[in-house]
Amino acid sequence: MAKIKDPGFGYKTAASAKRMVNSDGSFNLRHINKKFSVSEIYSRLINMSWMRFIMLIFIWYGVLNLLFASMYYVIGVEHLTITKSTPYQDFLHAYFFSAQTLTTLGYGLISPQGNTTALVSSIEALIGLMGFALMTGLLYGRFSKPKAAIRFSDVLVLRPFKEKRAIMFRLMNKRVNVMIEPEITVTLAVNDIDDKGNLARKFFKLSLERDKIMYLPTTWTVVHEIDEKSPLKDYTDEQILALNAELLILIEYYEDDFAQNVYQMHSYSFDDLKGNSKFVPAYYFEESGQAILDHSKLSEIEKYN
Amino acid sequence: MAKIKDPGFGYKTAASAKRMVNSDGSFNLRHINKKFSVSEIYSRLINMSWMRFIMLIFIWYGVLNLLFASMYYVIGVEHLTITKSTPYQDFLHAYFFSAQTLTTLGYGLISPQGNTTALVSSIEALIGLMGFALMTGLLYGRFSKPKAAIRFSDVLVLRPFKEKRAIMFRLMNKRVNVMIEPEITVTLAVNDIDDKGNLARKFFKLSLERDKIMYLPTTWTVVHEIDEKSPLKDYTDEQILALNAELLILIEYYEDDFAQNVYQMHSYSFDDLKGNSKFVPAYYFEESGQAILDHSKLSEIEKYN
Amino acid sequence: MAKIKDPGFGYKTAASAKRMVNSDGSFNLRHINKKFSVSEIYSRLINMSWMRFIMLIFIWYGVLNLLFASMYYVIGVEHLTITKSTPYQDFLHAYFFSAQTLTTLGYGLISPQGNTTALVSSIEALIGLMGFALMTGLLYGRFSKPKAAIRFSDVLVLRPFKEKRAIMFRLMNKRVNVMIEPEITVTLAVNDIDDKGNLARKFFKLSLERDKIMYLPTTWTVVHEIDEKSPLKDYTDEQILALNAELLILIEYYEDDFAQNVYQMHSYSFDDLKGNSKFVPAYYFEESGQAILDHSKLSEIEKYN
Amino acid sequence: MAKIKDPGFGYKTAASAKRMVNSDGSFNLRHINKKFSVSEIYSRLINMSWMRFIMLIFIWYGVLNLLFASMYYVIGVEHLTITKSTPYQDFLHAYFFSAQTLTTLGYGLISPQGNTTALVSSIEALIGLMGFALMTGLLYGRFSKPKAAIRFSDVLVLRPFKEKRAIMFRLMNKRVNVMIEPEITVTLAVNDIDDKGNLARKFFKLSLERDKIMYLPTTWTVVHEIDEKSPLKDYTDEQILALNAELLILIEYYEDDFAQNVYQMHSYSFDDLKGNSKFVPAYYFEESGQAILDHSKLSEIEKYN
Repeated sequence: MAKIKDPGFGYKTAASAKRMVNSDGSFNLRHINKKFSVSEIYSRLINMSWMRFIMLIFIWYGVLNLLFASMYYVIGVEHLTITKSTPYQDFLHAYFFSAQTLTTLGYGLISPQGNTTALVSSIEALIGLMGFALMTGLLYGRFSKPKAAIRFSDVLVLRPFKEKRAIMFRLMNKRVNVMIEPEITVTLAVNDIDDKGNLARKFFKLSLERDKIMYLPTTWTVVHEIDEKSPLKDYTDEQILALNAELLILIEYYEDDFAQNVYQMHSYSFDDLKGNSKFVPAYYFEESGQAILDHSKLSEIEKYN
Repeated sequence: MAKIKDPGFGYKTAASAKRMVNSDGSFNLRHINKKFSVSEIYSRLINMSWMRFIMLIFIWYGVLNLLFASMYYVIGVEHLTITKSTPYQDFLHAYFFSAQTLTTLGYGLISPQGNTTALVSSIEALIGLMGFALMTGLLYGRFSKPKAAIRFSDVLVLRPFKEKRAIMFRLMNKRVNVMIEPEITVTLAVNDIDDKGNLARKFFKLSLERDKIMYLPTTWTVVHEIDEKSPLKDYTDEQILALNAELLILIEYYEDDFAQNVYQMHSYSFDDLKGNSKFVPAYYFEESGQAILDHSKLSEIEKYN
Repeated sequence: MAKIKDPGFGYKTAASAKRMVNSDGSFNLRHINKKFSVSEIYSRLINMSWMRFIMLIFIWYGVLNLLFASMYYVIGVEHLTITKSTPYQDFLHAYFFSAQTLTTLGYGLISPQGNTTALVSSIEALIGLMGFALMTGLLYGRFSKPKAAIRFSDVLVLRPFKEKRAIMFRLMNKRVNVMIEPEITVTLAVNDIDDKGNLARKFFKLSLERDKIMYLPTTWTVVHEIDEKSPLKDYTDEQILALNAELLILIEYYEDDFAQNVYQMHSYSFDDLKGNSKFVPAYYFEESGQAILDHSKLSEIEKYN
Repeated sequence: MAKIKDPGFGYKTAASAKRMVNSDGSFNLRHINKKFSVSEIYSRLINMSWMRFIMLIFIWYGVLNLLFASMYYVIGVEHLTITKSTPYQDFLHAYFFSAQTLTTLGYGLISPQGNTTALVSSIEALIGLMGFALMTGLLYGRFSKPKAAIRFSDVLVLRPFKEKRAIMFRLMNKRVNVMIEPEITVTLAVNDIDDKGNLARKFFKLSLERDKIMYLPTTWTVVHEIDEKSPLKDYTDEQILALNAELLILIEYYEDDFAQNVYQMHSYSFDDLKGNSKFVPAYYFEESGQAILDHSKLSEIEKYN
């Protein structure tokens, strides 16, 4: 009964308490009175979706151009080498001049003639170059950030296994590359009554048939056998299926594409546990002897008997 | 009494010796006769504040433009496609031409006509591109440098704990992301008289209730129980509070945002130790069952009894 | 008989099954129903050959210019500061204007006169800068990606060794730099009949004379002695040479050029095993005492007796 | 007598054999028949001196401009918007046009008029952008490459130590930053006669008073006590000083500035061993209690008695 100390969540809980870890691996926690930290801007710019990131660049470009266009307009478009026209057209000219300056295009059809305009435009060009330098870094940071790419089966299964029973889930590499030495830790968290009669969380590290393999080319079925040492040994299948419990999973491996160790968190609620089921093979051989891995079969289960 | 060998500071001390590690984690040490090392320029440019970094870019831009403007002015502004005017205006034209060259704007209203001017401007453009290439790298380096983001409580507490006493401090993640497998080492440094009757530092590795957890979603209260093995076991509370001692802390964890292991140093002087106090909970559940983490409560303490 | 659990490939096999790992270290596996993952674009752009990468940049440049040239042509070349001519020449002008905008050249001989053209060109310049920012990141990513650079001998040898026999292969650093603490794991995979009478893979971790060294300046001959514990002890030389087996190799070391640990996979089919042979020395001393490493001798063997 | 297996250098040696590792940590080895490897270009560009790197950029810039200038000249300078002049001046114009194109300056005073010239210049601008993208990556790579910054004392000392004798050397951090958990391995290599009567290298891992510390704020004196287990126990001081031996040193630590583990190699020839000497302290306290580290004293020794 490998009951363990709190892995970092605390024993405190509430009858109404929600799951600790969302199924995407993030903590289910609301932060209040948090101080703003500059380094989180980078995190956000790196982690937002590509759609939002590109929109942000366009907005930044448009707003900065409007700002500088206004300055050129206020200084006076007569300080640009362009014939004065309607206010609307003048502002457009100032806007295009700004865009041609910010990007360091500098066609020259519209050029700065007055000293103030020339000074502002020299500063705008510097700001543009700083912005594009930043964008370069962010684009690289977005692409090169090592991301774990484990895909977990949607469900857990509970099934007979070697004269006893076992809880199993399956995982695989989303990508085609090589995952080296994946190692997994599975912690069971259940709410229970503690010594003082209060509701408290209990944590158990589940023993696994294997918790480390050398490579992960295909799928890996992670197996917790419910033997005499398992915290679940005294429960019937029905009781296990009805438990208000959570499996906290931490997997680490060496990601060859980024040449780094990466971690991935995951969580299964026992609502996802299916009784008397087994996973359908996702890996098989063609007649030619060629090995095939079918990504669509990861979560596919069938009746055990 | 886990007395340990010097962790790297040396046994040598002085009656007037100041703390070894500042509370920001840097060493309290003055370097003399240090040779200049190129690689430290990068460190400084990476670690300076954003305000100073951006000011440095503007200064670099201004100074470089003044330099090249002077060269164009000396060569003669008649080699630029601009009408000669007063010396002041001529120099300004040279300055704007330089800015338009350094940023590769090249409007063309002011263009080089003579060979010398054209040659200098072609070199200036190269230098500009090198400078902005460097700036791109520095901006990326500043953002992407893995930084530990542990926030430590301002104070230590000394309080009754499980029939004995304990010294505790609390820490948390400044950010919202996931810290994986944080591991902490706490070393007590006290000045004492050695075998030869000289004042010397003694170091003790303090045993902790837990020195490693799996995740750090909320706060972590680090507990050194003053049991029979503790170097503090023979001291009364008053004596402990009066000690001229220092706690040296080293914490390591896997920082998910940067996919790397990071270390953070910290130091507590015993001046920060509060007797008969305990930390106020910073983590609680709303009625809805939502877990809340209040960042403002990290250092909040109350009387123990 | 260090029979081990499946290192991640599964016990399942087929009579016609091909080798599991190609000799370049990639898995011999076909993926079906795989979901597209954005992060794989980066992997591909990083891992493709230089030839293809540079061609891709030229194609991207040409296609984008054609696209924008068509837009300028449709808007009307009279909105560019260039005399209208034949449709062919007009399109060429639009194309050159596009190229001068995308690269932020902006000579200005061809400049945008109308508002729509000016707007499109300001967007094209932004897209150009984003493209070149991306290219910068990719070029850096391609160069800086830590790559293991172990070269393996083409063949394995089976030879008498210390009163017994041994299987050996040889490896070296392709580069001149320092490889620190290389560590190797060798797994033998053979097809055999399992308890239920089915064809199944068996895996054995082979014991090695040495599986870790401190540095790899020259060549390293990896030796598996066929002693009483070897899975091959009951086979004659002829039987070993005829085995349908595979050696799976995983090597890890610290790569000084990239300051990171890197892994490299390799696989030998027993078809590459040469009986009664030994490797020719590749490392020797000149008369001056200078040590020489001959890269061309890595796979060179000679008769043992 | 911790005699160890070859740490990777091989037992083979020659009477005239030179030291294995140069004092800068590189291997003393000549490579022949080495295949060219693209990834080594990056290594070289990253590791060359700043002087050479900047000269290389200027040469690349000059040569590329000469190349394109020749092309524009051959196509005909009448296709540039500049008045035809002497061949020398025409070529200079072509050269400046090339420079203004490669850097994407594009003043426009010299613009392409013919289609061929316009096409070539659009390709030159792309090549320029690719070149500067590469330069950006290289500049960043040069700065951000984690480099170990341990400085070793020039000499070793042999001195009485705790009723026995010891060999010592001293090291320190060249920089001001924090080195965390430095760990050192010291291997003694001596030439000796092996079982078969041949000259062979022998390797001994030397036991150290301490081989790992937590931090390296000041200096670290590494001590090998010549006790009953030392390979040097049967030698007199004179014999030790006369030995044709080499100390191979490998040190690893966590470099905070780059948030990575780095390794550094070093080698001492026994020619650098000084008998009956000790190191002068480099770390002391001012009267104010401020700790001082004097970098100039690292290698300073004095007579032991």
